[in-house]
Amino acid sequence: MVIYLNGRFCDAEAPAIRADDRGFTLGDGLFETMRAADGKVLRRDWHLERLRDGAAVLGLTGLPPEGELSDALAATLAENGLADAVLRMTVSRGAAARGLLPPEDISPTVVIAAAPPPPSLPPAIAITATSACRDEASPLSRCKTLNYLPNILARREAEAAGANEALLLNTKGRIAEAAIANLFIVDSGDVVATPPVSEGALPGTMRRAVLEAMACIERALTIEDLATAAEAFLSNSLGIRPLVSLDGKPIGTGEPGPVTKRLQKEFG
Amino acid sequence: MVIYLNGRFCDAEAPAIRADDRGFTLGDGLFETMRAADGKVLRRDWHLERLRDGAAVLGLTGLPPEGELSDALAATLAENGLADAVLRMTVSRGAAARGLLPPEDISPTVVIAAAPPPPSLPPAIAITATSACRDEASPLSRCKTLNYLPNILARREAEAAGANEALLLNTKGRIAEAAIANLFIVDSGDVVATPPVSEGALPGTMRRAVLEAMACIERALTIEDLATAAEAFLSNSLGIRPLVSLDGKPIGTGEPGPVTKRLQKEFG
Repeated sequence: MVIYLNGRFCDAEAPAIRADDRGFTLGDGLFETMRAADGKVLRRDWHLERLRDGAAVLGLTGLPPEGELSDALAATLAENGLADAVLRMTVSRGAAARGLLPPEDISPTVVIAAAPPPPSLPPAIAITATSACRDEASPLSRCKTLNYLPNILARREAEAAGANEALLLNTKGRIAEAAIANLFIVDSGDVVATPPVSEGALPGTMRRAVLEAMACIERALTIEDLATAAEAFLSNSLGIRPLVSLDGKPIGTGEPGPVTKRLQKEFG
Repeated sequence: MVIYLNGRFCDAEAPAIRADDRGFTLGDGLFETMRAADGKVLRRDWHLERLRDGAAVLGLTGLPPEGELSDALAATLAENGLADAVLRMTVSRGAAARGLLPPEDISPTVVIAAAPPPPSLPPAIAITATSACRDEASPLSRCKTLNYLPNILARREAEAAGANEALLLNTKGRIAEAAIANLFIVDSGDVVATPPVSEGALPGTMRRAVLEAMACIERALTIEDLATAAEAFLSNSLGIRPLVSLDGKPIGTGEPGPVTKRLQKEFG
């Protein structure tokens, strides 16, 4: 495989990044994970929009224009001979001497990697993470940043508990999202709901697609809401995933529900 | 300059890190910034102890033994012809395919970079950061991780306000630390105090040195405590720095105080 790196392609397994790149030294950057099908990057413009919004929050300047990034995504698929793929675009602020304030003349690092689409995941069996929470008041909670340790810790905590996903709470103790996905519930009155971004939910692209595709409300969700839900599911750029259990207790029937199955048919 | 990279030395400006290194893709790692003087790494064993503690929290395995890391620090100074320096050791979990759970056979990336010691910073003029907070309940708040975006945002917020440092609050609204340092106050009764680690303060090595060097208590600190303090100072591995102003108001006399000056003589 080859990766795109600032306008050229290089071996994915060769050293590509300087050790003083702020992506490596400080997690100073953003990423997008995208699904490509039949050579087309799904919801590409939403991904690039979120990337641009995140760059504004970080004050990360010098990104190539969106047309150039779109072309780079297509070229990365082509160079790797992939039509169906998962693409990851990583953007860091670039290489710099030590210190938190980036220099004026810094230039971002843009990497795009492609891989065959992963097998679909089994239904999610989640725990409520205790090792990490989402700071819903921080503008960073609205960005897909390279600071992924809270999610990694939560995911490891799930693994240790025999589960395969973790829900992260916000500072008020309400549910913000899962470690690698947004959360939706279907309540006993068939109302579909997901936490608003103000609760610490990442503005996911698949979350946006679901919100556009069906009647769905955004409201704060508690563990109690999930415990009494008829069904629940998770969404990320790779698809829809049933959430069938939390902290050892089944959600609804403990099986993927009808709304979830319908969305899986539509979005994968 | 040359950097140490997993047992060898290479050009600091050449690509050294794979683009799929989890340090670059997820901020999945730790670092230590150390001061070297006369060829000796100050408080080296405390830095290596904190690194080991952080690795335990992250479940980051496969680190070289401490003797090897110590030798690598010394060799990095020697290779660069430096006796007085600032050293940065970065440890990431290593390269891996996408996904939050690291594979079993992953091997960490260890980088050490050296630079001449920076000029001492002017007295700190701080703001209270609103763009980021410290999650004092997370085990990550006790680790020096690569997830530095909250601190970067806080530092940028300070810059935009005409200040040069930022204080980060914890989820209870009390002071945890500064963006690049720990906080100490000297109250009107000459009692020196610093927030305990349970308040979200990083267990800094210079903080530890100050706690060992003088009578000092660990207690929760509020903005009000700082507003009424006789003096305040910041500590990090590079030294002691007076904190003379917060949110536009002088702290104490608005000049470096006697306790601060005494510690600066001892610790730089």
